[in-house]
Amino acid sequence: MTNADIKTWVERIRAGDVRAVARAISAIEDSTTESTELLKALFPLSGKARVIGLTGAPGAGKSTLVDQLAREYRKSEKTVGIVAVDPTSPYTGGAILGDRIRMQAHHADTGIYIRSMATRGFLGGLARTTADVATALDASGKDVVLVETVGVGQDEIDIVRLAEVTVVILVPGMGDDVQSIKAGIMEIADIFVINKSDRDGADNVEKEIRMMQSLAMRKDAWMPSIVRTVATDGKGIPELAAAIEEYEKHLDKSGLRQKKNVNSWRERLVEMLRESLLQKLTRESLSEEQLNGYATEVAEHRRDPYTLVDEIIANFRKK
Amino acid sequence: MTNADIKTWVERIRAGDVRAVARAISAIEDSTTESTELLKALFPLSGKARVIGLTGAPGAGKSTLVDQLAREYRKSEKTVGIVAVDPTSPYTGGAILGDRIRMQAHHADTGIYIRSMATRGFLGGLARTTADVATALDASGKDVVLVETVGVGQDEIDIVRLAEVTVVILVPGMGDDVQSIKAGIMEIADIFVINKSDRDGADNVEKEIRMMQSLAMRKDAWMPSIVRTVATDGKGIPELAAAIEEYEKHLDKSGLRQKKNVNSWRERLVEMLRESLLQKLTRESLSEEQLNGYATEVAEHRRDPYTLVDEIIANFRKK
Repeated sequence: MTNADIKTWVERIRAGDVRAVARAISAIEDSTTESTELLKALFPLSGKARVIGLTGAPGAGKSTLVDQLAREYRKSEKTVGIVAVDPTSPYTGGAILGDRIRMQAHHADTGIYIRSMATRGFLGGLARTTADVATALDASGKDVVLVETVGVGQDEIDIVRLAEVTVVILVPGMGDDVQSIKAGIMEIADIFVINKSDRDGADNVEKEIRMMQSLAMRKDAWMPSIVRTVATDGKGIPELAAAIEEYEKHLDKSGLRQKKNVNSWRERLVEMLRESLLQKLTRESLSEEQLNGYATEVAEHRRDPYTLVDEIIANFRKK
Repeated sequence: MTNADIKTWVERIRAGDVRAVARAISAIEDSTTESTELLKALFPLSGKARVIGLTGAPGAGKSTLVDQLAREYRKSEKTVGIVAVDPTSPYTGGAILGDRIRMQAHHADTGIYIRSMATRGFLGGLARTTADVATALDASGKDVVLVETVGVGQDEIDIVRLAEVTVVILVPGMGDDVQSIKAGIMEIADIFVINKSDRDGADNVEKEIRMMQSLAMRKDAWMPSIVRTVATDGKGIPELAAAIEEYEKHLDKSGLRQKKNVNSWRERLVEMLRESLLQKLTRESLSEEQLNGYATEVAEHRRDPYTLVDEIIANFRKK
C-alpha cells in the first residue's frame, strides 16, 4: 500500500465513510503492517471525541443502556461510535450477529457506528487494540466514543481505564452486589449506574456503594454519583448523560483531564512498545520454523529458555 | 549478586530450603535482574515435577479440593508445591493471610509448600510468572506442582494451559452450569470435577458436560472424565488422583506429552521475549522521566505515538 493509498483511505475515514472506517478497524484488529501507517496519519485528526467507558457484569443490561445513551447524544446532534468488547469470548461470530441486531435499532442513522470485538491473541493486546479503534472512530469525526465491555475482571479494567470517564453498571439482586465487587472496580468508577432500578434491592445497592465510598476516599476527591436507570424504558438516561457531563466539567476544572491523559498515554506507550518490539522481532529475527525448533529443544530440556531468550534478543539488536 | 551467590542459592533451593524457595519466588514475582540468572541455573534441575492446573469459578471450593488432593499425594510420599493465583485481586495482603490459614492445615509437613500470587502488572505477565514459579518449585524437588486459579476468563486459561493436565471444577446450582460456560473452558478441560456433588443438580451438570462433549470432539480424541467430589469430606479425591494419572498415561502413550510441551514452550518463549524485550528497553533506553515527557507530548497531541514508538525502538537497537 502506497502513501497515496493511505492518504485516500484517511480522507475517506475523515469523511465518515462507513466502509473505510470498517476496513480501518479490521486492519487495526489484525495489526497489519499498514495499520501502523494508517494510525500515524489518523492520530493528528483525533483528540476531539469524548471517550466514555462502560462496564458491568453479564446481564446488567449494558447494550441496551449504551444504545439508549447513544440515542440521547443523537438528540443533540452528536455523532456516536460504539465499541463493544467481550474479552471472555474467543469468537467474533456471535458478536457480529449482535452488531447487526443492534444496528437495526439505529438503521438509517449514519450518525451511529457500532462495532464489536471479541477475539484476542495469547496474553494481552485487546486493551491496546480497543484504544487504537477508539482513535480511528475519533478521527472519523465521531463526537462521542462509547467503549462497552463485559465483566469486572482485570481485562475490563485495562480497557475502561483508557477512557476519560468510566461508568460502572450494577443491577439489584444479581449476586454482584457491591460487597462482592472487587476493590479494583470501586476505584475506577467515576459514575455508578443502578440499572433495572425498578427491581427490588435498588436501595440496597445504593446503600452499599455509599458505604464502600465512605471507607475509601478517592485520591482526586471526586465523589462518584449514582444514577438509577431502567434502560429498557429509557428512564434515567438523560440523568446519566448529565452525570457524565458533570464529571467532564470536574475533569476540566480540576486540571485532572490533562493528568489522566498523561497517565493513560504512559501506559499505552509502554503497551505499544511491548507489542511493537515483539512484532518487529518475530518478523525479522524469528521465523515460525526457528521458534518451533527452539520450543522442541527447550521442551526436551536440551536448552535453557532464559539464556535462549537473551541470545535471540541480542541477535535482533545486531541486525 | 555474584555467580557464587547464585550457586549457593540454587543449592539451598535444590535441598528444598523453604526460605531459599520463598526468596526465589519473590525474586521471580518482582522480575529482579538476578531472577533471570537464578532461573537459568534452576531450569536444568527442573522437568521432573508433574504440573497440574486446576480452575473454577469463585465458590467452587478450589482451595479445599487442592488441599485434599495435596494430602492424597502426600499419602504416597510425594512432595507437593501449590501455587494459588487470583488474577482479579490486585492485592497480595489477603492472599498471604490465606496462605497462613492454609499452611496451618499442613503444619509440620515440610513436604507441602503453598504460595499465592495476586498482583499483576498492567496488561499481562502473570501467566509467565506462574510458569517460572512452577519451574522453581519443580527444581526445588517437588514431585507435583498444583497451579490453582480462580475463574474461567482468558487470564485463567492462559495460566492453566501451561500445565500438563488441566482440571476444571464445577459445582451444581451456582449459575455456572455448563450452558453458560464459555467455549474456551470446555476445550482446555482434561478432567471435569463436579465438587459439592452431594448438592442437588449434580446429575444435571454431568448431563450438560456430556451434551457439550457430544457436540465438539477434542482434536486428540481424549474424552475428559468427570469426577464427582465432596472436597470438604475428602470424598472422590482418590478418584480424582486416579483420573489425573489415567490422563498422564494417555499423554505418554499417545506421544501427546511431548507435543503439548512443545506447544506450551512455543507460547512461553514468545511471552518471555515480549517481557524481556520491554524490560531491556526500559532499563537501557527509556527512563521514567523520558517516558513521562513523551506521554505529555502525546497527550497534548504534539507528537504522534505510533511514529514515536518506532523511533524509541530504532534507538534501542542501535545501542
